[in-house]
Amino acid sequence: MTPIPIDDPGDPRLDAYTRMRERDLVGREGRFIAEGEVVLRVLLSGRARFRVESVLLSPERLPGLAPALAGLDAPVYLASRAVMGAVAGFPIHRGVLALGLRGAEPSPDALVPPGPALLVGLVGLANHDNVGGIFRNAAAFGADAVLLDAETCDPLYRKAIRVSAGTSLTVPFARLPTGDALLDLCTRQALTPLALSPRGEAITTLPPLPRALLLLGTEGPGLPEALMARARRVAIPMAPGVDSLNVAVAGAVALHRLGGGRLAEA
Amino acid sequence: MTPIPIDDPGDPRLDAYTRMRERDLVGREGRFIAEGEVVLRVLLSGRARFRVESVLLSPERLPGLAPALAGLDAPVYLASRAVMGAVAGFPIHRGVLALGLRGAEPSPDALVPPGPALLVGLVGLANHDNVGGIFRNAAAFGADAVLLDAETCDPLYRKAIRVSAGTSLTVPFARLPTGDALLDLCTRQALTPLALSPRGEAITTLPPLPRALLLLGTEGPGLPEALMARARRVAIPMAPGVDSLNVAVAGAVALHRLGGGRLAEA
Repeated sequence: MTPIPIDDPGDPRLDAYTRMRERDLVGREGRFIAEGEVVLRVLLSGRARFRVESVLLSPERLPGLAPALAGLDAPVYLASRAVMGAVAGFPIHRGVLALGLRGAEPSPDALVPPGPALLVGLVGLANHDNVGGIFRNAAAFGADAVLLDAETCDPLYRKAIRVSAGTSLTVPFARLPTGDALLDLCTRQALTPLALSPRGEAITTLPPLPRALLLLGTEGPGLPEALMARARRVAIPMAPGVDSLNVAVAGAVALHRLGGGRLAEA
Repeated sequence: MTPIPIDDPGDPRLDAYTRMRERDLVGREGRFIAEGEVVLRVLLSGRARFRVESVLLSPERLPGLAPALAGLDAPVYLASRAVMGAVAGFPIHRGVLALGLRGAEPSPDALVPPGPALLVGLVGLANHDNVGGIFRNAAAFGADAVLLDAETCDPLYRKAIRVSAGTSLTVPFARLPTGDALLDLCTRQALTPLALSPRGEAITTLPPLPRALLLLGTEGPGLPEALMARARRVAIPMAPGVDSLNVAVAGAVALHRLGGGRLAEA
């Protein structure tokens, strides 16, 4: 790894880092931006599912990161924070960016393990904080994969990766067109679909489910009734008069309950 | 309730709403700002602990909110969104603001119930999203109160109230100077202080604790070791290689475990 200094914000080798916010919205043709040290370290670790195309650091960040970069087979560009800001279009205070390659997305069915399985299915989740938080919780509680419907936002969006603490780079995910397609996959794969509902059976007394998929929907309207009807409804006991938790928090409590047995054995 | 139209952003009756962001930072002499319909409805409900000084609405919000405002003993000002924005210093898209009165803060010891008790203690939590999230979770899982050290940020800061979904207006809270003072209160009140730590005993097999206080610290450094040493350490089982959850999420899982028995009986 020989770092390559760059002084010119117009250098074509930095093209993919330009106008970062605008391109966050339109996509990057098979690439994604990773920012910050925590996320870069995950991307460089053996746990990440994605290849690195390049790294862009301010020079003072190099010494601390050099050991993690040692085995990297991709260019490491060095540019001052002023040049980084001019390229990105806004200040890059942390001085740590990288480009990852999305690669081919796995097929949803390929992500369902034989034997014990715990998956998360997201339907219509358009908030990057929530999606990032759900990946972090899925990683913590040992979920095998996250499946997303077409309306759910991109787990490789810059902010979603950051909020996930880099776990959207490690937890496998794949897309299905609709929530119904998620339920069809459950049937095909003999997974019990679970939906959180105040009127469901208490999750505290649920028998162990060796193969389950936890469905999570948007915070306001929740899951469509037609999907709920196809799922087993479970409730997180809450104080009277309180009717909701943040969706990532509710998912964490449910995954803790569903994954607990497996984790205690690990 | 007779609404009072105001056309002049300089009207002295709106003084307390001016320069909202700057004054978020310096405090408001015994007042706080509530924004948005969800929060206003909580503030107007019998559940809120605080009196309303005034309400400021854009006229088109009045019909929907009139029933909730019917019994209010405080002025309701009506101003266009343009006037509201000129007063606040930034656009008030939702058109819903109110001023609440903090009143006298209760003494921490007065918030500890006799008999079964579940409290949350926050040490050095400077992030308003996390503090708001923790209040929401404390409400959901039936915690009796939240105690804060001097470094923890204000639960009545505008954004903290919003993230709490209004529960920082309903869950009682009080301040102590330090984390040590929190532990002294636990001793005085016969509360078991609990601290989350990967090396603690599993929270999944913890015996029921009739009187407990869950300590939560900042996400990075966590609780100071000197405080940890005075607490009973409990661990949330997690997948190998994953060492942390967001602090509000970890608190939610712990409160779910600690409060679950009480809630199932309710």
